[in-house]
Amino acid sequence: MIDVKSIILIVLDGLGDRPGEILGYRTPLQAAYHPNMNRMASLGMTGLMHPISPGIRSGSDTSHMSLLGYDPRVYYQGRGPFEALGLHMDMKPGDLAFRANFATNRDGKIIDRRAGRINAGNDQLASAISIDIGNYKFRVKSGVEHRAALVVSGPNLSDKISDSDPHSEGKPPEPIRPLDPSADSTAKIMNEYLKRIREILRDHPVNVEREKNGQIPGNELLIRSAGKVPDIPSFQEKNGITGACVVGSPWLKGLCRLLGMAVIDVPGAAGTINSNYTGKIKTAIDASKRYDFVLVNIKATDVAGHDGDYELKRRVIEDIDIAMEPLLGQSDRIVVAITGDHSTPCSVKDHSGDPVPIVFYTDGIYSDDVKLFDEVSAMKGALRITTQDVLNILMEMAGRAEKFGS
Amino acid sequence: MIDVKSIILIVLDGLGDRPGEILGYRTPLQAAYHPNMNRMASLGMTGLMHPISPGIRSGSDTSHMSLLGYDPRVYYQGRGPFEALGLHMDMKPGDLAFRANFATNRDGKIIDRRAGRINAGNDQLASAISIDIGNYKFRVKSGVEHRAALVVSGPNLSDKISDSDPHSEGKPPEPIRPLDPSADSTAKIMNEYLKRIREILRDHPVNVEREKNGQIPGNELLIRSAGKVPDIPSFQEKNGITGACVVGSPWLKGLCRLLGMAVIDVPGAAGTINSNYTGKIKTAIDASKRYDFVLVNIKATDVAGHDGDYELKRRVIEDIDIAMEPLLGQSDRIVVAITGDHSTPCSVKDHSGDPVPIVFYTDGIYSDDVKLFDEVSAMKGALRITTQDVLNILMEMAGRAEKFGS
Repeated sequence: MIDVKSIILIVLDGLGDRPGEILGYRTPLQAAYHPNMNRMASLGMTGLMHPISPGIRSGSDTSHMSLLGYDPRVYYQGRGPFEALGLHMDMKPGDLAFRANFATNRDGKIIDRRAGRINAGNDQLASAISIDIGNYKFRVKSGVEHRAALVVSGPNLSDKISDSDPHSEGKPPEPIRPLDPSADSTAKIMNEYLKRIREILRDHPVNVEREKNGQIPGNELLIRSAGKVPDIPSFQEKNGITGACVVGSPWLKGLCRLLGMAVIDVPGAAGTINSNYTGKIKTAIDASKRYDFVLVNIKATDVAGHDGDYELKRRVIEDIDIAMEPLLGQSDRIVVAITGDHSTPCSVKDHSGDPVPIVFYTDGIYSDDVKLFDEVSAMKGALRITTQDVLNILMEMAGRAEKFGS
Repeated sequence: MIDVKSIILIVLDGLGDRPGEILGYRTPLQAAYHPNMNRMASLGMTGLMHPISPGIRSGSDTSHMSLLGYDPRVYYQGRGPFEALGLHMDMKPGDLAFRANFATNRDGKIIDRRAGRINAGNDQLASAISIDIGNYKFRVKSGVEHRAALVVSGPNLSDKISDSDPHSEGKPPEPIRPLDPSADSTAKIMNEYLKRIREILRDHPVNVEREKNGQIPGNELLIRSAGKVPDIPSFQEKNGITGACVVGSPWLKGLCRLLGMAVIDVPGAAGTINSNYTGKIKTAIDASKRYDFVLVNIKATDVAGHDGDYELKRRVIEDIDIAMEPLLGQSDRIVVAITGDHSTPCSVKDHSGDPVPIVFYTDGIYSDDVKLFDEVSAMKGALRITTQDVLNILMEMAGRAEKFGS
């Protein structure tokens, strides 16, 4: 009889990378000094994990769903709802939710998709553009910096519509287009809403004041990732274990809340560079005494990858490794896995479809010959898996897997 | 932002093999001098690819469908229709198509399944056995040497029937048997047809003349691989990119034509040993300027494997490698993958279920430690994939993959 252990799954967001000239043609993970993760690789089982399946350029949302045991090809219906849930917005089935940015529109063109990372007056702007048009209610809530979410309630809404976000600067905002004839009326009401709020934002005192102070205004709301709240079983129903999360990103808190997992906040851990890594890991270890499964997400690796900053990504990995140290003394009662949700190579500055290294670490498991935790060493490891396999392996190593057959 | 590249997928048919004593217990790919493919392995990402899934003895047709993004477990309905399409035969939904061989029947037994590779008078024989029986129309068209296709039109045809081809010599042709009660009437009319055409072929002047000249007659039509035309989306609909093919085998041309891909002919490239390899690769490079994706199939490796000729297979690989040289200068704008559709080990003389080495090569991708392109070296590469993953990885490396999620 195997003892039952708790599980901590640590996702270093966008961890995987490619060799960079500035690092002597090594990846940030190869170049970083990370003795704690290497120790886990030495004692544990390693390999390469494909997010979703080989070659798929996975988003963070779809990959996390898969890591939590939900096939995104079945359950994923756009990130909008997670973002709105992360901001504690009320939603009901049939509502439509979007990710949104306050942006700067000058003469019809987006000159800054983040309105200078606006961080004052955002709540007032969000409140001013929470309006009703006929039978449709539009509610906006601001998040970190320029980020916000929009929830729309009303009859016959469809998520088969395009974004207004042009996804690059120097271009005008896009009109919302139906991607399916059933979405014609939704596209129409969304375009009407975006037109009305441009007038409200233009004349809003927050923006008038910003212009006066030489700051660019938050006079445009760019919306994207339309989605409806999925009808989804809870984490406990799906996997038969209790779950908690220690994560910074609002959308990921939203996903975990939707799945009925406990969302544990850590002071100073907000999903940015220099987040409180030590606090997150300690909190996760503590939570693993009360919950069967704890998800940790550390966003800083992804931020460094999106910025294309090899040196920063290396330093972030080194800082995170220091925070990992307490995990080494817990291998008798905890199974740890460390991986990324996808690669965000500094050379690409976006998600790629490359596989990501993964290590499983606990006492008494079948180890492989790999002594280092990085992309190239992991190729010599035991495993070639996908995100969809991770929770199964963790459950198995934790002594929690049901036998399939007899 | 990633630059968008074109894709060339080169399938060396039946490439995979097993070690042969005659080659010092190396595979033909290990024994062959192939510096250009090794260069791509050194700079690219390698691994093993399972045709369809591990242990499956894949056909060329099912494997190619999978490589082109179509799960054959969903779309494959027998090779007959591809063979007929490859010969430009007219077909409509509900029609039944067969691969066929002119063979030699002596006293009720097949003494040569290929009628001495008959290559004169074939069109006349095919025309003579294109007859109507009641409401059923039977149309035969001859292909390369003894090969032909048969298309049947008529009411309530079923493809759940057995072959008349005994698949080995010294045996009588098999009666067509229904594999399902719904196919009873189809089996009956097919047996009636085969009986009638035996009389026609026996007395046909082409065969009378052959016998007079001491040649064995084409007095039997062996039919196999009954299938209906599948209802299948085009390559562009399915994958969102334009496609072309540079292939010799008529059935593969037929498949590509069915998928709406451009079929580009190359003089001297007919799917045999000593095909115009250089012409094929050059044509593919040229086509990659007009199409997003180009499939190349080189059949000679499979022919050598079926013949059990290790030395021939090695020489064919060396000749093909010379033709690969121009690909090395194109890695800034093309993603190349080289693999087989399955293994045809010389020791087996037929398709096996062994995994096949694969290399992906283009600028700026994550490489692995593998420096040689062969079955054993590829085991140390990054990838363990199936045919179903190949197009996803190619799309990703070409900067053409949509992000799944955000």
